[in-house]
Amino acid sequence: MTRVFFDVGMSLDGFVAGPNGGPKNPLGDGGTTIHQWMFKQRAFLQLLKLGDGGDADNPDNDLIEETFNRTGAYIMGRRMFDEGEPNWPEDAPFRSPVFVVTHQRRDPWERKGGTTFFFTSATIQDTLQKATQAARNKDVRISGGADIIQQYLNAGLVDEFTIHVAPLMLRNGVRLFKRLGEGTINIEGVGAMHSPLVVHLKYRVVK
Amino acid sequence: MTRVFFDVGMSLDGFVAGPNGGPKNPLGDGGTTIHQWMFKQRAFLQLLKLGDGGDADNPDNDLIEETFNRTGAYIMGRRMFDEGEPNWPEDAPFRSPVFVVTHQRRDPWERKGGTTFFFTSATIQDTLQKATQAARNKDVRISGGADIIQQYLNAGLVDEFTIHVAPLMLRNGVRLFKRLGEGTINIEGVGAMHSPLVVHLKYRVVK
Repeated sequence: MTRVFFDVGMSLDGFVAGPNGGPKNPLGDGGTTIHQWMFKQRAFLQLLKLGDGGDADNPDNDLIEETFNRTGAYIMGRRMFDEGEPNWPEDAPFRSPVFVVTHQRRDPWERKGGTTFFFTSATIQDTLQKATQAARNKDVRISGGADIIQQYLNAGLVDEFTIHVAPLMLRNGVRLFKRLGEGTINIEGVGAMHSPLVVHLKYRVVK
Repeated sequence: MTRVFFDVGMSLDGFVAGPNGGPKNPLGDGGTTIHQWMFKQRAFLQLLKLGDGGDADNPDNDLIEETFNRTGAYIMGRRMFDEGEPNWPEDAPFRSPVFVVTHQRRDPWERKGGTTFFFTSATIQDTLQKATQAARNKDVRISGGADIIQQYLNAGLVDEFTIHVAPLMLRNGVRLFKRLGEGTINIEGVGAMHSPLVVHLKYRVVK
């Protein structure tokens, strides 16, 4: 059964990106510091074509591999795509279909290594249906940014999620949970794991 | 050496209290749900004179006892005091000097069981000095609310803190980290512990 999840890094004060983000300033001012823990893991560096350094023998690295391996398709907001497009390596780090929710019409964009970006102005429900089909029994990851994650949470379409809490205060930027709707979102803690670099919090949405 | 710390419950989306808080609605709408984990611990129920129920044999309960035992004096904002005054039991759950930061002049208010509230309009620095003296080598806890915690954090006067992250979304209310100043606050993760009810995150401020 395909599960729908998100998996994001967050500063302790609640931000997933700094202010002033854009294609020339991906993740906004100070935003990359949220992901410092990932830049020390081999699985992440290899995915981003940043070499074979990093540590492969620790739970943080395992988590990145598991998350990558379980994912059969991605859903992404337009701004995250716009920030990533000029910055991802030529073989983009998804290796699966990525559905970009945007009003801009554009033909599918196929990259080396198995990533194809599909651009859709469909509802989030219809987009999820397409992504689920494309995922072929693997899971669908709502990549981000915060806005599209909030939309899927508010619509009751997320099954589970992981937040990687970085030990830092960003003070301003893009909040992960800014616009939660009026409906109740019941969640249940599944576990917490920590390394010196980050705390991983896992939750399940109770439906 | 006296350490200065805070120890607060927070919803996963960053709130320490719900909206519309006041003496007749302590912790605001939905705010008590943040502390559900505490209402199941004997140490907390006994402190609040709510009987001898609850569980005494688990790490959540131990944590409440440790936090209480290490504290020799408290510093509290006026609104937290105003909310607590009509709601705490006659022998208030502090058993130590409590310094309430307020512009209102008022004589010290002594309660059964060892709690005395002192009202002060001094600076947060001078208040901390008084509290440190009163703590007699035990630690000083910045009780809350969020505003006074932010003031002490911004002033670089906090040594360490614990956040108890409750598995729920409050959607609005009082944010723990709303007004962090422009100065950098360097923090370091000390550990994370979780039970089915809550995740405890511990941090140290690096000076």
